[in-house]
Amino acid sequence: MKKHYAIGIDLGGTSLRVALVSEEGEIVKKIKVPSSDNIRESLLRSIGDIFTDDVAGIGFGVAGLIDSEKGLVMESPNLPAIEGLNIPEMVRTTFDVPVYVENDANVAALGEKWRGEGKAFRSFVLVTLGTGIGGGIIHNHALMNVPAEIGHMSINAGGEKCSCGNNGCLEMHASAKAMLAHAITALDNGAESMLRECCKGNIYKLTPEDIYLTALDGDTLAREVLREAGRYLGVGISAMINIFGPDAVILAGGLIGAWNIYIKEAIKEASRRTFKPLFDRVKILPSSLGDDAGILGSSYLVFTCQKT
Amino acid sequence: MKKHYAIGIDLGGTSLRVALVSEEGEIVKKIKVPSSDNIRESLLRSIGDIFTDDVAGIGFGVAGLIDSEKGLVMESPNLPAIEGLNIPEMVRTTFDVPVYVENDANVAALGEKWRGEGKAFRSFVLVTLGTGIGGGIIHNHALMNVPAEIGHMSINAGGEKCSCGNNGCLEMHASAKAMLAHAITALDNGAESMLRECCKGNIYKLTPEDIYLTALDGDTLAREVLREAGRYLGVGISAMINIFGPDAVILAGGLIGAWNIYIKEAIKEASRRTFKPLFDRVKILPSSLGDDAGILGSSYLVFTCQKT
Repeated sequence: MKKHYAIGIDLGGTSLRVALVSEEGEIVKKIKVPSSDNIRESLLRSIGDIFTDDVAGIGFGVAGLIDSEKGLVMESPNLPAIEGLNIPEMVRTTFDVPVYVENDANVAALGEKWRGEGKAFRSFVLVTLGTGIGGGIIHNHALMNVPAEIGHMSINAGGEKCSCGNNGCLEMHASAKAMLAHAITALDNGAESMLRECCKGNIYKLTPEDIYLTALDGDTLAREVLREAGRYLGVGISAMINIFGPDAVILAGGLIGAWNIYIKEAIKEASRRTFKPLFDRVKILPSSLGDDAGILGSSYLVFTCQKT
Repeated sequence: MKKHYAIGIDLGGTSLRVALVSEEGEIVKKIKVPSSDNIRESLLRSIGDIFTDDVAGIGFGVAGLIDSEKGLVMESPNLPAIEGLNIPEMVRTTFDVPVYVENDANVAALGEKWRGEGKAFRSFVLVTLGTGIGGGIIHNHALMNVPAEIGHMSINAGGEKCSCGNNGCLEMHASAKAMLAHAITALDNGAESMLRECCKGNIYKLTPEDIYLTALDGDTLAREVLREAGRYLGVGISAMINIFGPDAVILAGGLIGAWNIYIKEAIKEASRRTFKPLFDRVKILPSSLGDDAGILGSSYLVFTCQKT
């Protein structure tokens, strides 16, 4: 008997999203929990809360380097608790359905291709902008089964060491992590800024949203933090365009809320760094699926694998 | 009547190679001329010298950004004389056969896949190392129809301006051009080195080969020039592996003659910068076709398009 639903799971850096999704791409039920210390238990409990007999399989999008054939998390700099985890083995202790595992940004790209902005494009690079920076590549309408670890290409060879072992990674210069480090260092060094008044004066609790709101109020430091991260993001976007010559670059993740300063600066920087004929024909646009790209894409893994 | 030969043309940065190639990949005749000022005339004359009635078509690999559908050279930082040139239009004034045009590193990758080291691999990145740095990507056994301008990704965002408009391009730090600039600057600044004795003391005539031979004699400056370029090349190779997770990286072009210093340093640097599981399974090896990769790959364009 054909089953009409999938469970899609997005296991990103800071939270765990689990959803029941129909084969038409409708999200029927959705759970969001913090990715706690005991992530295996949270996972199994959340799946249990949502599981039905009409579930064809479970798809995972996981932050890190994934061996999709084995369903193994090989490396996960932002989620070390799950390094070495064989996800299908773990899930099948409790649920007897097929399990598919991919990188979180790869499934987000798949989600965008299935239900989002990506539908219109033959080729695009999806860049997820949050604590870390990830990438997924759609080429000739299909997801490339490659790591696409865009956040861990060095754009500043002599730069600071990243948790991945490389120096000067894009992620070290253009992510939320980079923005917070920049702001805190400046404040520690005595910079004048309205950011001091956020979080009851505890600057170590600053969020990217605080920075954006303060920047909108005209704060010099907050604006420079967003602009600098944006310029570095533009360096990375330029590399993606010079290499892939895609129809579009789709930007996703919490940071796109700061579009007017951060992303605009990135586009300006990318424009001057990229081969003109390639830049002229690429569209740079925000994801329309928001946080749902990952759960939709991981559900789609189930439906497409079921077909083949 | 089926025709059994193709003319393959490699129009790289410094020379023009034209060959008659059989459908089995045998090079029957080969001409090499410098890419002179009057490149159009040289091209037509060379093709004429080699053309026969059994030629099915002419394939071109051209340095720069190519619109393959139109056969148009959109940008060519190292060969500005042919920017804007529509190659099929030019060739068909004289020869009435199909003409195919691709980027030079892309056809070199195709040549490696057809007749070289690449035969064994499902996916590889080919990197051409010469005056400039180019790339070609084989994914699932096929050439990706993307610009693959690896040499123009920035690995040093704040670095020197490149002729492409970007700053700190891989090519600015790891190519023959970069080596010569480094050596000449050091010599101009009074560095002691056996390099001064090359080229009858005219340091502006130094070649990468001079640097390599002098390095083998133990010269400190020559060794450091090769090592520094190698370290930067390693940064670029690392990005390619973190993004594509290929089975192999194949290195081609004149500079691989300096393997023992330049490339060894690059591999060492890439090893510490790359996700370990990806580095552990990638093979980094030299092209076995040498200068013939381009003419073989551009001939293969003719044979594959003829089939479809």
